[in-house]
Amino acid sequence: MNIYEMFKKVREEAPLVHHLTNWVTIYDCANIVKVLGASPVMAHAKEEVAEMSAIASALVLNIGTLTPEFIESMKIAAKSANSHNAPVVLDVCGAGATKLRDDMCFELLNETRIDIIKGNASEVARIAGERIQTKGVDSTDVGKDLIEIARKLANERNCTVVITGETDIIADRSKAFKVENGHEMMSHVVGTGCMAASVIGTFAAVERDLASASAAGLACYEIAAQLAAVDSNGPGTFKELLFDNIFNLSKDEIEKLQKVTQI
Amino acid sequence: MNIYEMFKKVREEAPLVHHLTNWVTIYDCANIVKVLGASPVMAHAKEEVAEMSAIASALVLNIGTLTPEFIESMKIAAKSANSHNAPVVLDVCGAGATKLRDDMCFELLNETRIDIIKGNASEVARIAGERIQTKGVDSTDVGKDLIEIARKLANERNCTVVITGETDIIADRSKAFKVENGHEMMSHVVGTGCMAASVIGTFAAVERDLASASAAGLACYEIAAQLAAVDSNGPGTFKELLFDNIFNLSKDEIEKLQKVTQI
Amino acid sequence: MNIYEMFKKVREEAPLVHHLTNWVTIYDCANIVKVLGASPVMAHAKEEVAEMSAIASALVLNIGTLTPEFIESMKIAAKSANSHNAPVVLDVCGAGATKLRDDMCFELLNETRIDIIKGNASEVARIAGERIQTKGVDSTDVGKDLIEIARKLANERNCTVVITGETDIIADRSKAFKVENGHEMMSHVVGTGCMAASVIGTFAAVERDLASASAAGLACYEIAAQLAAVDSNGPGTFKELLFDNIFNLSKDEIEKLQKVTQI
Repeated sequence: MNIYEMFKKVREEAPLVHHLTNWVTIYDCANIVKVLGASPVMAHAKEEVAEMSAIASALVLNIGTLTPEFIESMKIAAKSANSHNAPVVLDVCGAGATKLRDDMCFELLNETRIDIIKGNASEVARIAGERIQTKGVDSTDVGKDLIEIARKLANERNCTVVITGETDIIADRSKAFKVENGHEMMSHVVGTGCMAASVIGTFAAVERDLASASAAGLACYEIAAQLAAVDSNGPGTFKELLFDNIFNLSKDEIEKLQKVTQI
Repeated sequence: MNIYEMFKKVREEAPLVHHLTNWVTIYDCANIVKVLGASPVMAHAKEEVAEMSAIASALVLNIGTLTPEFIESMKIAAKSANSHNAPVVLDVCGAGATKLRDDMCFELLNETRIDIIKGNASEVARIAGERIQTKGVDSTDVGKDLIEIARKLANERNCTVVITGETDIIADRSKAFKVENGHEMMSHVVGTGCMAASVIGTFAAVERDLASASAAGLACYEIAAQLAAVDSNGPGTFKELLFDNIFNLSKDEIEKLQKVTQI
Repeated sequence: MNIYEMFKKVREEAPLVHHLTNWVTIYDCANIVKVLGASPVMAHAKEEVAEMSAIASALVLNIGTLTPEFIESMKIAAKSANSHNAPVVLDVCGAGATKLRDDMCFELLNETRIDIIKGNASEVARIAGERIQTKGVDSTDVGKDLIEIARKLANERNCTVVITGETDIIADRSKAFKVENGHEMMSHVVGTGCMAASVIGTFAAVERDLASASAAGLACYEIAAQLAAVDSNGPGTFKELLFDNIFNLSKDEIEKLQKVTQI
């Protein structure tokens, strides 16, 4: 996998990445796509999502501030993306916290083709049918072999599974990666998880091997976070410098710092 | 009141703070809770708010971009918090600007138990039945004894009342505080008022004496603002440094700089 | 046209600027108004928008994350602003991307009095009836004489037309301006286009000649962007410094750097 080549391809192709996401980090999700050199669009009206997804190169869904009506729009958008062969990422944000979240995730998974399921350990474990407790939208230790959970879910759902954390796990039916980039400061600021899904969607828009796209995207994003952490004094300046560092990321930085391993 | 002890308790307990808030500053409200070391969750679907409030340690309501449907969700969430003894903060954002805002505030106050009413001088005066004019969501001078207004409203509604401003006033039925921390730059950036309510909710999640929790929370938040103002050149960098400074706030800074007085 | 005098007037009068805007950049739109020294209010409930627009000095509409229900609220707000002689700005964000966006723009233009139509080249061309393709919410080269398009639309709709880009074009029925301020970094961060509409609305709130207000507002905003670009290392820090620089903008900077020309 040539991570830098994928990063460069995002800049060159500037794919349109359609989002139906939460109201908390919607700006950050749009902006991370923009600073990568791609083109974000956020649109959720049921009357226009099919048309928007049809012209987009990827679709990112995030249930952070879901309502049943919003999920209806997500289904319409996902079906449109499905029929146009645009990859669909689902961030199962807060899965396990309420019955609504679980129900809506399973409806999306059962009624549309989700190409990449992304969440933290407790969220993905929940979707995989493991018994754990989520505390709001933050992760708790699941005490399980995450690689096993990812592989099993990837097989069951015939998709790519991404579990973010200190070490990220990515698995599809035939292979798995771990990404050991990133910085502890990412856990102290709201939005880093949601932005990860947007980055994955953006890379998936230019690379058909979705597990490789996910791993490469996370590596670039988390290398930028490492660089941002050096110059920041806390979570506020860190997030702004994260945008700067993605924008300025070089071939050299990516190749020297990337810690992606096939497992 | 030991302010630092409460600040430390927030970090140690990392309470889940559920918000139903406005779409303008929703990110800032989540992030201020996060940088304090607690765990924010924003959820507003009527189908899940009761469940989310039931697992949260505090609930923060803000009517900044209200609709009648959103207020319905607030009522469901508040009743759930009430029955689980989680404190409920209501930021009466823009009270007095339109009939809808006034009506919805009174409905919330009459149909649920609001533990802390928080607003600027003109907003709280409106809720207290004083005749004043609010200009949009910004405060105008009410020309009244604010301490008197706060005490009266605290007695009438059997709650804690917080009036934010250059000097913050906090009153419950038996005591009152003033907080003289803060910096003028707070008035030049959007979100400082909304974040204050989130800070109050977060401290209220770990301290049963809600007037003390409110005063301690505001003191910490405003000390961080004072420190941020020193290093910033304007409202943009100020807000990012505010997050940094809350994250890095020390026992020494809190104890040296706090200006909380019982009145 | 005395640009600085208008900038000063915004500070002195601190007009209330009512917005119905998208959920992506709603914070930035509010904050840009605030750092200019004016007073933003974001309110979209159909039950209160007429009342809010009635007390506001300008109304800014942005269809970025539209729904039919949201457009209904926009119409109510616009009619209220119309009857109170407050100028109405419509940012035709994403026009051309979907049928819904086009239909809703034309409904707003036909059923209410829009005083200023604002968009990038491809969006405004679409509204003017030129055949072009919009890619999501980002502009594509329209390959037409933009001044001609602006003048024609201004005449047809009896309004002011603002086309933003490397060179901004502003036209009403009797005159036209170009603004050649700004910085390339503005195109690498989400929100600069939406904020431009908010700035225009804020200047229009204090100056009856809407083409002059638009040109002056854009000049001030883009001069601040030029200053911000000098000190920033990428789009993250750039946007925060943009807020700082608008807040600190001086008479001298405006007069030395402005590049507004009547054409």
